[in-house]
Amino acid sequence: MSELVTPHVAQGGIRTAYIMPNLVPPLTKTEAVLAYKKDLERIAPNTEFLMTLYLHPEVTPEEIRKAAKAGVSGVKSYPRGVTTNSSSGIEDYGVYYPVFKAMEEEGMVLNLHGEVPSDDEKNISILNAEKHFLEHLRKLAADFPNLRIVLEHVTTSEAVECVKSLPANVSATITAHHLWLTIDTVAPQPHHFCKPLAKEPKDRKALQDAIKSGNPKFFLGSDSAPHPSASKAPSISSSGELHACAAGCYTSPYLVPLVATLLESFGALDQLAGYVSEHGRAFYKVPAKAGDELTLRRPATAVKVPARLDGAEGIEVVPFWAGKELGWEIVN
Amino acid sequence: MSELVTPHVAQGGIRTAYIMPNLVPPLTKTEAVLAYKKDLERIAPNTEFLMTLYLHPEVTPEEIRKAAKAGVSGVKSYPRGVTTNSSSGIEDYGVYYPVFKAMEEEGMVLNLHGEVPSDDEKNISILNAEKHFLEHLRKLAADFPNLRIVLEHVTTSEAVECVKSLPANVSATITAHHLWLTIDTVAPQPHHFCKPLAKEPKDRKALQDAIKSGNPKFFLGSDSAPHPSASKAPSISSSGELHACAAGCYTSPYLVPLVATLLESFGALDQLAGYVSEHGRAFYKVPAKAGDELTLRRPATAVKVPARLDGAEGIEVVPFWAGKELGWEIVN
Repeated sequence: MSELVTPHVAQGGIRTAYIMPNLVPPLTKTEAVLAYKKDLERIAPNTEFLMTLYLHPEVTPEEIRKAAKAGVSGVKSYPRGVTTNSSSGIEDYGVYYPVFKAMEEEGMVLNLHGEVPSDDEKNISILNAEKHFLEHLRKLAADFPNLRIVLEHVTTSEAVECVKSLPANVSATITAHHLWLTIDTVAPQPHHFCKPLAKEPKDRKALQDAIKSGNPKFFLGSDSAPHPSASKAPSISSSGELHACAAGCYTSPYLVPLVATLLESFGALDQLAGYVSEHGRAFYKVPAKAGDELTLRRPATAVKVPARLDGAEGIEVVPFWAGKELGWEIVN
Repeated sequence: MSELVTPHVAQGGIRTAYIMPNLVPPLTKTEAVLAYKKDLERIAPNTEFLMTLYLHPEVTPEEIRKAAKAGVSGVKSYPRGVTTNSSSGIEDYGVYYPVFKAMEEEGMVLNLHGEVPSDDEKNISILNAEKHFLEHLRKLAADFPNLRIVLEHVTTSEAVECVKSLPANVSATITAHHLWLTIDTVAPQPHHFCKPLAKEPKDRKALQDAIKSGNPKFFLGSDSAPHPSASKAPSISSSGELHACAAGCYTSPYLVPLVATLLESFGALDQLAGYVSEHGRAFYKVPAKAGDELTLRRPATAVKVPARLDGAEGIEVVPFWAGKELGWEIVN
């Protein structure tokens, strides 16, 4: 899968990728992160990979100092059980305060999967899990005013408003797919199922408006997640019970053309550079280099997202927007 | 498909079935309804079928009189586009007032699929489509106080409260699957995708509490919908775009044992007869006959819902709760 998808980052118009640590097993040690980075660089030598650790009891303040020295950019927090490979995720931020303190001192970024686990008794479901997470975000932002925090892949108007209201050390990413999906197109289609779930039209509009406003707190985080198409289809285990489909949408191979097409659809094409590149680079303090410029054009002949992407050993991924026409293509 | 599923009604412990008219083409004429009934009776001669017309411009007050004379029990209304085969559905109830008047006079029942079509501009999605429908229900109930109305397959606390607040001519059905599903188990699983969508834990609890209370306004409507398993899996059209999965859960072959298992799980087993049989029969004025009694027992050896049901010509249906164990079985 890595061999198939890693080159897609550059193909989609992206020079610098921020790499998630939710592998099996999760990347909780600097050595493991560096080994993963080396592997990615081998496959795609012209892509810059910013690496992260997986927030976990193994990630101590000492590990943070070591990771920072080794050039690791951030730490990703997954509440337990809320998304792909998050069974090692955290349950309580209090115990990680010494870790966050060390991150603040070392200038590392905290990336939050902003959902709390579902709880029937408290009426917490995947519909309101993000909203319930915001109190944690507010507290972390207040307790660590110099820690850069990213609320990842926001999906609700409440999250947008919350991030807007917090100081400049708190940003949010918005995915390409959440600019298009709502619950109506997610529920009947496993290839649209992702965490956090896409929600109501008003929520999608809040994401679009955040980009349209040019507020530098909001930038692209693709959350591009390739899953073998078999894990997106209903299947029955040996005991006869149904398996849940995997969560994630895959946009890497045509990410910038897709984003341009979507931004144009809601009148925000003028924000393309800010949303895709400038705001994120400024927040991460990773300036663009000479030669990083990307030029798009309207395709002379129709360019469609392929129906499937085929890798070695029968790997097959159905990308987001399969079969749909892109309004832009990359020139260089 | 009919040959496979029609005998399942009796197998699941049901003597009298209320038959929906959303065939292709929809059943808008008394003759078509009677022909369908004849076909069902041929397949399952020991099941009693109560028949319905599909609310449509072809259903005139004259057609209502004719249908009533022929023994048709009710008329089902599908707002346009909200569920399986509803593209012929209605957009405005005003034009049907003469039809409802005739139904009221003839003692026919109006069955409502209680969702309005989604509308991005108004922030109407499949999450709040039922809530937005309730104003139509209230108006119909006020304008036709002698028309028996059933709000079908309710899924929200708001719908339960609304039906409770209306006079005795308004009832609601609750499906078996909505007593178990919430959005968390629907989103990752096409076999759990149904319309209306299962919603939050508080909504499921409202359905369970409505049954637990013994309120005769609430009774079983299975909304049992068999779909070939291929139409529950993601598939790509010739143009390369993704098809939406079909909406519906199939519970017929083990309906009463499933309902007993679910009711027991939330402490409402004492309401089984009322919910499954008595309340609905009273509302429809279709009393039980001698010999209709059903006895359940705890299975001596584990009884599981089959992983799949196979029909002729390669038809395959994955039932709701596939592979799960039922706490009860039918004796007679």
